[in-house]
Amino acid sequence: MQIKKNIKRLLLYRLCLAKFKEMGFIKVFSYNLGQEAGVSAAQIRKDFSHFKITGNKKGGYDIEEVLDKLNNIFRRNELQSVILLGMGNIGRALSHYVCGFTERKQYIIAGFDIDPVKIKRTYNVPVYHMDSVSEFIVTNHIRIAIMAVPSISAQEVCTKLVESGIKGIMNFSPVLLQVPDDVIVNNINLCDELESTIYTAIYSK
Amino acid sequence: MQIKKNIKRLLLYRLCLAKFKEMGFIKVFSYNLGQEAGVSAAQIRKDFSHFKITGNKKGGYDIEEVLDKLNNIFRRNELQSVILLGMGNIGRALSHYVCGFTERKQYIIAGFDIDPVKIKRTYNVPVYHMDSVSEFIVTNHIRIAIMAVPSISAQEVCTKLVESGIKGIMNFSPVLLQVPDDVIVNNINLCDELESTIYTAIYSK
Repeated sequence: MQIKKNIKRLLLYRLCLAKFKEMGFIKVFSYNLGQEAGVSAAQIRKDFSHFKITGNKKGGYDIEEVLDKLNNIFRRNELQSVILLGMGNIGRALSHYVCGFTERKQYIIAGFDIDPVKIKRTYNVPVYHMDSVSEFIVTNHIRIAIMAVPSISAQEVCTKLVESGIKGIMNFSPVLLQVPDDVIVNNINLCDELESTIYTAIYSK
Repeated sequence: MQIKKNIKRLLLYRLCLAKFKEMGFIKVFSYNLGQEAGVSAAQIRKDFSHFKITGNKKGGYDIEEVLDKLNNIFRRNELQSVILLGMGNIGRALSHYVCGFTERKQYIIAGFDIDPVKIKRTYNVPVYHMDSVSEFIVTNHIRIAIMAVPSISAQEVCTKLVESGIKGIMNFSPVLLQVPDDVIVNNINLCDELESTIYTAIYSK
C-alpha cells in the first residue's frame, strides 16, 4: 500500500516537471515543485532521496536530470507487454488508447473475450478466446494484465491469470479480487471516481 | 485532499459491505470490515463516527443500516446530472458506461465535442457543439463535468466550464488543470495507473 502511494507521487512529480520543462525552466526547487504538485517540499525531498535523486541547496534540482532518473525508475526504456481481458466498452476504449500507452513503451499485445463476435472483429489488438489466455501468458512471459470483464466473471478470470503467472492487475471491474500476497491489484472504479468527484465538490464548499 | 481520501475509503467500505450482505451476513465488526478493505479497524470506527454511523461493541454494525447511511451520504437518491466533454475513445466508452452510472442516479445528460462528425452521430447521449456548453451548464444548473478532451485544449475547456458554474471535474486528460479553490478536480490518468501497476508489481517482490 505504501509503495503504491510513493509511486503515485513520483508519477505526479514527473508530470509537473514535464510541465516546467515545457515552460522553459532548467532548474526547480522542491518548494516550487511542491506547490505545483500539492505536496510539501519536505515530502518531495524525502521521496527523491529515497530514490537517490539529489539536487543542491543553492541551485535546486536539474529538471532534465530528474526526469531521466524518474523515467529509469519507471523503466520507460523497457518494453512492457500487457494483455487486456474483456473487450466491452472499456476494453475497446483502452485498446484504442494503446497509442498513449505505446509512447511509454507499454504495449497491449493481445485482448481476450468469450464473445465469438468480438473475437472475429478487428480491433487495434488481436483478440483471442479467453480459453487460450493461460497458454498465452506462459508462452509470452506476460506479467501484467488489464481486467475489464463483467463483475460476475471477474474472480474466475483473475484466478486463472494469477495461476498462469500474472503479478500485476489493473482492474476495472467493481469487485474486490482475492489474490495471493505477491500479486498487486490496482482497482479503477470509474463510478466510484465520479461519485467521489460529485460528493467532494458538493460537500467541500 | 483529506476529504477526498475519506470519501474513497467510504466508497470502499460500501463495496465491502455490499459483498458481506450478498454473502448473507446481517452484522459486521469493524475488524472484519477492516480485513476485507485493507484498513485498520480503528480507522473504520473513526471514519464511521465522523459520519455519525454507530454500531455496538457486542453486535457490531448492522450492514443494512450502514449501507443506508452511506447511500444517504452519497446522495444516491438524488439525481446528479453530469456532462461529458470530448467524445473520443474514452468519452464514448463513458457514454456507454452510462448504465452503470444510472444505477447510482448519476446521469450523463449530454456530451460536447468540436468535431461535426461526432456531433451528428448517434450515441447513448445527445452530443452538442462545444460552443453551446456554457449556455447548457447555466440553463440546466450543471455542477459536475467529465473531461476527456485532448491535452492541448484541456485548460481552455476547463476555464470555460468553471466560468459557467462547474464545481467538480473528473479529468481524463493528462494535464494539471488550474482551477479556483472552490472547484474540485479528480484526475484519472489511465497511463499512470498502468505504469503504477507495472512498477508496483515488479518492485514489490
